[in-house]
Amino acid sequence: MGRRVAIVGIGLTAFGRRSDASLSELAFEAGREALRDAGVEARDVRFFAVGNVGAWSSEPLPAVLISEYLGLENTGSLRVEAACASGSAAIKIAHDAIASGSVDIAMALGVERMNESPTPNVVELIGRAGNYFWEFENFGLTFPGYYAIYATAYMDRYGAREEDLAEVAVKNHYYGSMNPYAQFRKPVSLEDVMSSRYIAWPLKLLECSPITDGAAAVILASEEVAGRLTDSPVWIKGMGYATGTANLSKRDDFLGLEPASRAARIAYASAGIDPERPYKQIDVATVHDCFSIAEILAYEDLGFARRGEGYMLLKEHQTYIGGLIPVNLDGGLKSKGHPIGATGVGMAVEAVRQLRREAERGRQADVKNGVAITHNMGGTGHYAYVTVYSID
Amino acid sequence: MGRRVAIVGIGLTAFGRRSDASLSELAFEAGREALRDAGVEARDVRFFAVGNVGAWSSEPLPAVLISEYLGLENTGSLRVEAACASGSAAIKIAHDAIASGSVDIAMALGVERMNESPTPNVVELIGRAGNYFWEFENFGLTFPGYYAIYATAYMDRYGAREEDLAEVAVKNHYYGSMNPYAQFRKPVSLEDVMSSRYIAWPLKLLECSPITDGAAAVILASEEVAGRLTDSPVWIKGMGYATGTANLSKRDDFLGLEPASRAARIAYASAGIDPERPYKQIDVATVHDCFSIAEILAYEDLGFARRGEGYMLLKEHQTYIGGLIPVNLDGGLKSKGHPIGATGVGMAVEAVRQLRREAERGRQADVKNGVAITHNMGGTGHYAYVTVYSID
Repeated sequence: MGRRVAIVGIGLTAFGRRSDASLSELAFEAGREALRDAGVEARDVRFFAVGNVGAWSSEPLPAVLISEYLGLENTGSLRVEAACASGSAAIKIAHDAIASGSVDIAMALGVERMNESPTPNVVELIGRAGNYFWEFENFGLTFPGYYAIYATAYMDRYGAREEDLAEVAVKNHYYGSMNPYAQFRKPVSLEDVMSSRYIAWPLKLLECSPITDGAAAVILASEEVAGRLTDSPVWIKGMGYATGTANLSKRDDFLGLEPASRAARIAYASAGIDPERPYKQIDVATVHDCFSIAEILAYEDLGFARRGEGYMLLKEHQTYIGGLIPVNLDGGLKSKGHPIGATGVGMAVEAVRQLRREAERGRQADVKNGVAITHNMGGTGHYAYVTVYSID
Repeated sequence: MGRRVAIVGIGLTAFGRRSDASLSELAFEAGREALRDAGVEARDVRFFAVGNVGAWSSEPLPAVLISEYLGLENTGSLRVEAACASGSAAIKIAHDAIASGSVDIAMALGVERMNESPTPNVVELIGRAGNYFWEFENFGLTFPGYYAIYATAYMDRYGAREEDLAEVAVKNHYYGSMNPYAQFRKPVSLEDVMSSRYIAWPLKLLECSPITDGAAAVILASEEVAGRLTDSPVWIKGMGYATGTANLSKRDDFLGLEPASRAARIAYASAGIDPERPYKQIDVATVHDCFSIAEILAYEDLGFARRGEGYMLLKEHQTYIGGLIPVNLDGGLKSKGHPIGATGVGMAVEAVRQLRREAERGRQADVKNGVAITHNMGGTGHYAYVTVYSID
């Protein structure tokens, strides 16, 4: 599996409506913090991957611009896109650049400035990330509609109710309220969620992730360099990634996102995690809750619950701290926000903060095994990246 | 440097105005040929990188769509963008995925369908890939203008004449005329070039690369798998990549593209090539001649000639077959065409064809050392990728 790779520095901007900062300034904010946190000079970074979708952006070459802002004068740089999983894709290729022996220090940075365009325009552009030719052009499906299809299929098959889905938002807003980087820092009650307006039945406004500006960055290093830089490296212990069909008519069912299950199996195998009981070894998970139903599907795709039983975990508070496996203690996409290209890198930042026990009071997991995972999806489930982080 | 990686299969579409094929169909054409050439099944490909800029494209997620068209059901896939060097960036990360030990077989594919938008629109969108905020928005600089600045600086400093630059087009059309995949397969005379209309003085129409549709693909494999698949692997022996400033006002001069020199030094060092006399070891080069002046700068940035003497190589036919080092025997961007995301992968295909001695009659280099290089630039010189290929 090549050389071991650790995350040795992290940086994050506040997520939200960031009309105070350009794309490069957002990236700079996160990137500079990551360099400082790692104790690394910009000129020591030899490879730089930027996760950015940017369909709404006037800036077509963010990687070169951000390299320059950050003073990364000795890197090769590129932009990587895997829809909403772009950030995890950036981490994967930065990892490979080190694991292959090409470089010793790399930066993966995700950034998105979605408020550059009006919201309806952004929603349309995201909609094109489904199956463009058939589903978007002919039926005008956009993302709330896709996840509403999954939600109705799930409710019909397993008897979950609207209230069961709404519990995702209640949990994630609860933890998001303790995260100073989160876009929404207000707890919401089940009644709040249930009485918010429908976006696409059965999904309501408070079950949908928002339009967000933000950036996140990590510095990755080889084992030798990591040993010099820090006493608390966080290792990338396993990575799984998979691609599935964009075309809903070609899927067997809408009761799970098949690439996520596949990516999880690969990641678990490479990290030595028992796929039957992964929650026995994982202290905390950050999953892709772009809509409430997505978090419940993630529970099942990741093996935290059996098929059709994911929503029961929430009922029993099993994904809160103290339960079987705490999930989205940063507020998730729902409350922390979802700046598309930054989301996957933001998840890595959260995994590292949790494993370093640096999360804010009330949202720090009990770290027993020193293992965290992230689950980052792109498209309507086309791209899946599951990454296992470990303190040893 | 991790595991050794070889190219074991190549595929290319005809370049040109391809109104007969969609983006996915173009990609399929090249990808299927590469799979066949490698003798590999689609399901054996475990990582898939797509080089695509696509600013003019209605399809925002080409990687997942193309994966599906090609039946790559067991891959992780992503799109990579480094402007006109996107294809080489795709090869670099596919290389790293194998060198790191993550996977044994990967595909890198580049594709662009530039004629989807009207030409003036495409020229504008490419223009944004310069320094957007200052140079594009304020001065409206587009790419012929950038390279005209380099050309005038070069002519002023070194005494080269318009005719000297025009010789690039004469050579590249000559070789392109023998390449059945090339967009323009008609030789042009010096008079033809000199009498074509000015696009941006001193660059004339026949010195500018065209708007092109096309795709190219390569299958990469680990040493063990390559040994099973083929008797004629072509190894990636060295890779250099570098990023420079997008901002012309921050450059020392316009007499070379500094990242290209840096990338060449790194690539030569990793491949054991003498940077003082690289032409002693390299049999054939494919360089980024987006405009005539760009090929001359490439000669100097790559160490084929001293500063200010690149244009003399052409005068003496030193970059024709039989000269010091033959360059762009496929016709280059100028005559073969420049489908942005595909260009770098197309260069790799050409390197492999030359090293396998499969190039068409009249444009096959004399392969003595079994070494070829590619030089692929992005933006106005922001991104540089230099790759050394070798038969052993």
